Amino acid sequence: MTDLSAPPFSSRHIGPSEPEQQRMLEAVGFESVADLVAVAVPEAIRAKDRLKLPAAIGEAEAIAELRALAGRNRVLTSMIGLGYYDTVTPGVIRRNLLENPGWYTAYTPYQPEISQGRLEALLNFQTVVSDLTGLPVAGASLLDEATAAAEAMTLARRAGRSKSDVFVVDADALPQTKAVLATRAEPLGITLVEHDLEGELPECFGLLVQYPGASGRLRDFRAVAAAAHEAGALVVAAADLLALTLVAAPGELGADIAIGSSQRFGVPFGFGGPHAAYMSVREGLQRQLPGRLVGVSVDADGDPAYRLALQTREQHIRREKATSNICTAQVLLAVIASMYAVYHGPEGLRGIGHRVHRHATALAEGLRGAGVEVVHGEFFDTVLARVPGRAAAVVAAAAERGVNLWQVDADHVSVACDEKTGAAELAQVWAAFGVSAEVAPEDAADALPSGLLRESPYLTHPVFHSHRSETAMLRYLRKLQDKDIALDRSMIPLGSCTMKLNATTEMEPITWPEFAAVHPYAPDDQAEGYRELIGTLEGWLAEVTGYDAVSIQPNAGSQGEFAGLLAIRAYHRANGQGERDVCLIPSSAHGTNAASAIMAGMRVVVVACDGDGNVDLADLDAKIDKHRDALAAIMVTYPSTHGVYEETITEVCAKVHDAGGQVYVDGANLNALVGLAKPGEFGADVSHLNLHKTFCIPHGGGGPGVGPVAVRAHLAAYLPGHPLHNGTPVGPVSAAPYGSAGILPISWAYVRMMGADGLTAATEQAILSANYLARRLAPHYPVLYTGRGGLVAHECIVDLRQITKETGVTVDDVAKRLIDYGFHAPTMSFPVAGTLMIEPTESEDLNELDRFVDAMVAIRGEIAKVASGDYDKVDNPLRNAPHTAESVSADEWPHPYSRSEAAYPLPSLRDGKYWVPVRRIDQAYGDRNLVCSCPPLEAYED
Amino acid sequence: MTDLSAPPFSSRHIGPSEPEQQRMLEAVGFESVADLVAVAVPEAIRAKDRLKLPAAIGEAEAIAELRALAGRNRVLTSMIGLGYYDTVTPGVIRRNLLENPGWYTAYTPYQPEISQGRLEALLNFQTVVSDLTGLPVAGASLLDEATAAAEAMTLARRAGRSKSDVFVVDADALPQTKAVLATRAEPLGITLVEHDLEGELPECFGLLVQYPGASGRLRDFRAVAAAAHEAGALVVAAADLLALTLVAAPGELGADIAIGSSQRFGVPFGFGGPHAAYMSVREGLQRQLPGRLVGVSVDADGDPAYRLALQTREQHIRREKATSNICTAQVLLAVIASMYAVYHGPEGLRGIGHRVHRHATALAEGLRGAGVEVVHGEFFDTVLARVPGRAAAVVAAAAERGVNLWQVDADHVSVACDEKTGAAELAQVWAAFGVSAEVAPEDAADALPSGLLRESPYLTHPVFHSHRSETAMLRYLRKLQDKDIALDRSMIPLGSCTMKLNATTEMEPITWPEFAAVHPYAPDDQAEGYRELIGTLEGWLAEVTGYDAVSIQPNAGSQGEFAGLLAIRAYHRANGQGERDVCLIPSSAHGTNAASAIMAGMRVVVVACDGDGNVDLADLDAKIDKHRDALAAIMVTYPSTHGVYEETITEVCAKVHDAGGQVYVDGANLNALVGLAKPGEFGADVSHLNLHKTFCIPHGGGGPGVGPVAVRAHLAAYLPGHPLHNGTPVGPVSAAPYGSAGILPISWAYVRMMGADGLTAATEQAILSANYLARRLAPHYPVLYTGRGGLVAHECIVDLRQITKETGVTVDDVAKRLIDYGFHAPTMSFPVAGTLMIEPTESEDLNELDRFVDAMVAIRGEIAKVASGDYDKVDNPLRNAPHTAESVSADEWPHPYSRSEAAYPLPSLRDGKYWVPVRRIDQAYGDRNLVCSCPPLEAYED
Repeated sequence: MTDLSAPPFSSRHIGPSEPEQQRMLEAVGFESVADLVAVAVPEAIRAKDRLKLPAAIGEAEAIAELRALAGRNRVLTSMIGLGYYDTVTPGVIRRNLLENPGWYTAYTPYQPEISQGRLEALLNFQTVVSDLTGLPVAGASLLDEATAAAEAMTLARRAGRSKSDVFVVDADALPQTKAVLATRAEPLGITLVEHDLEGELPECFGLLVQYPGASGRLRDFRAVAAAAHEAGALVVAAADLLALTLVAAPGELGADIAIGSSQRFGVPFGFGGPHAAYMSVREGLQRQLPGRLVGVSVDADGDPAYRLALQTREQHIRREKATSNICTAQVLLAVIASMYAVYHGPEGLRGIGHRVHRHATALAEGLRGAGVEVVHGEFFDTVLARVPGRAAAVVAAAAERGVNLWQVDADHVSVACDEKTGAAELAQVWAAFGVSAEVAPEDAADALPSGLLRESPYLTHPVFHSHRSETAMLRYLRKLQDKDIALDRSMIPLGSCTMKLNATTEMEPITWPEFAAVHPYAPDDQAEGYRELIGTLEGWLAEVTGYDAVSIQPNAGSQGEFAGLLAIRAYHRANGQGERDVCLIPSSAHGTNAASAIMAGMRVVVVACDGDGNVDLADLDAKIDKHRDALAAIMVTYPSTHGVYEETITEVCAKVHDAGGQVYVDGANLNALVGLAKPGEFGADVSHLNLHKTFCIPHGGGGPGVGPVAVRAHLAAYLPGHPLHNGTPVGPVSAAPYGSAGILPISWAYVRMMGADGLTAATEQAILSANYLARRLAPHYPVLYTGRGGLVAHECIVDLRQITKETGVTVDDVAKRLIDYGFHAPTMSFPVAGTLMIEPTESEDLNELDRFVDAMVAIRGEIAKVASGDYDKVDNPLRNAPHTAESVSADEWPHPYSRSEAAYPLPSLRDGKYWVPVRRIDQAYGDRNLVCSCPPLEAYED
Repeated sequence: MTDLSAPPFSSRHIGPSEPEQQRMLEAVGFESVADLVAVAVPEAIRAKDRLKLPAAIGEAEAIAELRALAGRNRVLTSMIGLGYYDTVTPGVIRRNLLENPGWYTAYTPYQPEISQGRLEALLNFQTVVSDLTGLPVAGASLLDEATAAAEAMTLARRAGRSKSDVFVVDADALPQTKAVLATRAEPLGITLVEHDLEGELPECFGLLVQYPGASGRLRDFRAVAAAAHEAGALVVAAADLLALTLVAAPGELGADIAIGSSQRFGVPFGFGGPHAAYMSVREGLQRQLPGRLVGVSVDADGDPAYRLALQTREQHIRREKATSNICTAQVLLAVIASMYAVYHGPEGLRGIGHRVHRHATALAEGLRGAGVEVVHGEFFDTVLARVPGRAAAVVAAAAERGVNLWQVDADHVSVACDEKTGAAELAQVWAAFGVSAEVAPEDAADALPSGLLRESPYLTHPVFHSHRSETAMLRYLRKLQDKDIALDRSMIPLGSCTMKLNATTEMEPITWPEFAAVHPYAPDDQAEGYRELIGTLEGWLAEVTGYDAVSIQPNAGSQGEFAGLLAIRAYHRANGQGERDVCLIPSSAHGTNAASAIMAGMRVVVVACDGDGNVDLADLDAKIDKHRDALAAIMVTYPSTHGVYEETITEVCAKVHDAGGQVYVDGANLNALVGLAKPGEFGADVSHLNLHKTFCIPHGGGGPGVGPVAVRAHLAAYLPGHPLHNGTPVGPVSAAPYGSAGILPISWAYVRMMGADGLTAATEQAILSANYLARRLAPHYPVLYTGRGGLVAHECIVDLRQITKETGVTVDDVAKRLIDYGFHAPTMSFPVAGTLMIEPTESEDLNELDRFVDAMVAIRGEIAKVASGDYDKVDNPLRNAPHTAESVSADEWPHPYSRSEAAYPLPSLRDGKYWVPVRRIDQAYGDRNLVCSCPPLEAYED
């Protein structure tokens, strides 16, 4: 019998071929992968059984199954609103950005020199937000509108003068915003007060106004803002960006902070996400801004260059002092929204806003003319109709006509117009109300409060006036893309970030209309395909991790952590142990852990690590003893952030459990475990996963992420709920019921196509590849931590501290010099300053691994020349890296090393070299001279 | 009443905004576009009425309408075969190549320095073909298998020793191949003889063997090939590339020429096309090869570089001596097929071949086991079953089960297996035959003739062994793409080639399965959407051109010409004037015209042009007088190839008509007419159009093209037919009934979204843009031809002859120097040697036009420096252009001008400069040292 089976998908996902794998094993000194794994992975944690997953299928079959699932979603016209509005993603943006690996496989722009393209796009986003909200400093996006509101709440608390614990929420705020605020307020001791903003304002440290309100009402909030300021409170406006094209900016009305969603700027529904939220603040609050902020600085030649500004605010620096655990953004979606603004320009956006508004007013006129009561006279896009006792019937009638409306209660229906609303939709809505109307939007009157008409200009920068033809837009996208290094050019060996293949077959379904065009609040019977896909995926993730229940709601790892800790907290409370509030965190942990614990109302107690980077068991015992009665949990990363399988993990778990605590295993490094070990089996109670690491969701240049939380059965009741679903003890952590549902087909497809064997083989290859790199680099750079047999897990840390001491060459120099060799740098100085953490993942083939080793070895040779004096201590190719084409072709060459040493240190670079667009960027200058929106063109002149 | 309408699609398609248009009009000296057009376009040809087309719709609406049309095609499993087989396009190739404007908007690689990426891909294609067919020289693709067979027939005639007029066709050849051979043979006086290749071979100059045959039969044709050679005839094998992974190569069996389709290497059905055909030849025939041939040469540094080889063979050089009118290839499809081979490698391809074969043998065993007669015992993928009287019923039963089979006649059904065939499909087929069978392909025996087993290796070059993971493939595609200039980087101002926007919305539908996965011979009721789309498009094209009937069958402009001339020929014959065989062609015409006329059995008589480039009326009169009784037609291009609206066109038409001739207007320059003038109204009888020029089908790097033929009513009966449709007097000119149907949605969407006003506005803008360029360039370079008011049409010719004479700087130097400025060169030395022909199209915005002018002006300044002696006559930036990054950053700089003058002659180039991958390529070296498959890697070493 002949084997006629087609090569499995895993042979495309996993980089090295079998012969290559054999060569790598030889280099590492093992006969087989099984032998390697047997030594590397502690027996104590090894899973007993093969994963119980359906047999792997091929790419064509997976597409067919996904098409079948997609076919079980029904796409109706959505006029539900509530923070999500239909929009047209311009084809040129969808194809060349959302569907382009040059954009979606990029990493977070921590290495700004190779990220100038997306940094420019994010600066455009910040300019859009800043201009439209009338507040000078905008961040580079947040996770969703509801969590942005929560971030604004905590910002107001720490920045305001008031000592009050009260945060006032507009009664007309979006339901998901209220719910997430409640989830976030309670552990922090903040009292939420809902208020109609009409009467006297309670004492508070802050206030959130929805503008326009969830009911559609558009109000001038100047007076209440003034009153709040009077009382020392800060004012947060949750504002609709499209409405702001027509009405006064929040900053002009007294808001200190504006937040909201940029979804309707060209980003599909995706059943709730991912979408980019925004936040902007008035002068004086910029250093309090959570999340990423892009700023302008200069490079070594003094030319303008973009980078992330004020990074010292971030949780990974502030650790337990952090007040936000945000560590990612929604870059890909923010970039789409920014390009939508670039493509339409201010007149185009105003035109869209005007069309939307006039369709809404025509709709209202039609209803009123037929005797239907329209509750609010002033609104932008949403019409609230009172139909006593008839709301359900109207909504049902509309659905039969292919339109989803929103039933507010038994007597009210709200109808939101959007960019796609036209005469046909109005006719269907009127018909659903049983109304015969014929009001043309062209003839309808405006319904904007006269005092709120927008007079200030926006998007005056040339970038919003220069790319109006599709050809020009296409070239702008290409030009920016070409400035960056993403996975489509070379490996991105970032430790702990697992930059693996994002396969096309995984990516394709997310832009199919049946997945992309479903509103998160669409009726259940219209999203059957989604719910089956989500349920299946949650089940698979539970099987992979050994837990009993999974929620995919958290739309970032940080939110998963928060949700996991909330579950622990709720569990202790339910057991009458509400006093347990100490969270032990090893000193090696990622800063997010501590920030999440604080957000969940816990106290952080740090546990020391020993010289090998492992949890110091003696110190752990001491800390447990000291906090035994208050012990809530321990948070550990496994394998550790040092890239090692700690032998003592089961012991650590047992000790904490014995003391009544719960064990949180951070799933950041799950790529080292899948198929080999299950946290839920080896002692943990809860984990979050990073689908954007282990399960192939691309990093998108710094988001979206998906951070499901997985728990054992005793915690299942405490997974995040949602106001639109049945109540659960713990509220939602994300705006949408299923978080970033729109990108879950990616992970679904990955698991479906890999199957148990493929997933396990991927993990094994990841371990082999990391050990191969460690073995090949070790003669040149010390490898910092290893476990049994001198092996690492799925990543390795090379230590430059001694080299730096001896030669002055820093990790920064090596990282920037790698750019000249065409590579993205590994993770710098985490978890240990002065080191580089390298994770190759299973997707890189031997050729690429060797190319990386060649570069690192060549760089080591350059360092040796610095040491020997062959290179100047300061003026050498390392310190001056990266080198632009402009610099190496300059008429004057002032350096003691040659141009070819600068540009082509390896002959292979002569074929298709990546040319970095700027030289090394001055980080300090940018923070001292903070510019966070598009600089005038003169800035680029010599 | 407010105007709430959204900006039309035309505002995205047309580059300049209204204010920009105003500025351009000022520069040209007109108040309005209407004024400009009134002067530029002769009143005599102006269309009287606005185009009668449906009102333009937006992009979202067009997608919705296309989805509705797509929904009316039904995609069944195709087991029809007959030269078209289902295949899996790997996702990474579909997304990053077929759906990537970096690949599909590229032009034909006439400028090899900026085409190294696609030239490498084409060289890979040639290597695949050459290796698999066992013949040393393969071309870079032909239009389809049937026309490739016709090209092989004429090649055999001119290269062979035999004086016979007979070409023998295998009785088991594909029906479309037989039909196209017949169409092509008759005008050339070739007698086609069908023969079973079993008995004695008739005297002939050539012989075509189908290998395997249309019936599936696989025969060893060594004996018949030997007999043919004996008689001085050449042997053409029409071979299936996938079969060749398992069976002996045609070259090993005695074929002199191999042809066939590469469709099943990853290229979707597309209802018949486009697909890349191939041709390879034995040593000694390479200079006879029709179409494009990529070869390896060296650049100015002596590094290997790719380019089109032996271009002097081509029709545009050989003109009336040409024996083929081929002037394009199917580059995009050939590149897909090549990447399919790169991704699968030889083992992968052999595995696919083996799976396909075993499914076929299992199918046959199952049928035989149940008593169904299987006609042939030796086959590759196609099983011919004899079911007396039951064929129609079996085919119908299969269709009900979702599978299309092929009814050969009342008693025979053929079933072709392909890459997608699995157990489920076999079960359905057996069931349709009323058979209960359970034969596993793994257990089935092979059915390949033992003497035909493939023993020779193939695809041994490293490129077929290095890109096996999706990540590696993605990077290879990106690396090649980055070497090239396509429309996603800068304008491509090629005269007469109309490189306009290929909008995403136009492109997206072509990869939807409902359009991509339909077999050309699918039953009518499964292709209703296609047929409606085609019918509508033909109607629109008739309206636009003023003709009465259109056939979209010709899959290139050259085939459209041939079809048009065949119609004229058939018309004269039908009128008893078969002696009319003289085709008048002005001396300015594109060489294809003459080649087509010869192919259509006509004699070419050249008509002189006057000093302004217009048809010399006196000479026309003289030629008409001389050939009055034999006058068949005149072929003129309008506007002329000189880019001018000739005032005398109506007079020319009248003179020819008066003499009993027909008027053929070459539609190459239709972009200057749409909405303003209609050839069918101003005197022409027939035209071909280039949908890949005027109607937005992208050039694909050198194909696909679509060249519909449009005729007045008296010629309608003589449009091309197809053997599978009702007989018509004229046979097919392309293999598939609707030619390259798969890309017709592009042109459909363009017309649908532009409407009458948009199309007209595009033409007007194209005229304005050309005149703007002419006006801006005129102070620097003489503009060669102009019409009324000193105006040009949609393109302009700048004359460098005097400059060359004075300075030695040639058009080549300017073209190559433009690369340093980031531009693709205009058309060089056509229609006049020593000139550049520039066509900006309507899609370029003012910024890009000005950028081009800036470059041309700067280059003129450089030329002036050569003239003044500031630059050396030889060692100057023009002669040394283009400059690679490597050359400008070399440690030694031997040139008298500076590095920055070489690299950054304009400051704007410092942002995102395109770096050319090779220096100027030595064309002569490549022709002297012909290498047409992948060179060994050592060739790239220093």
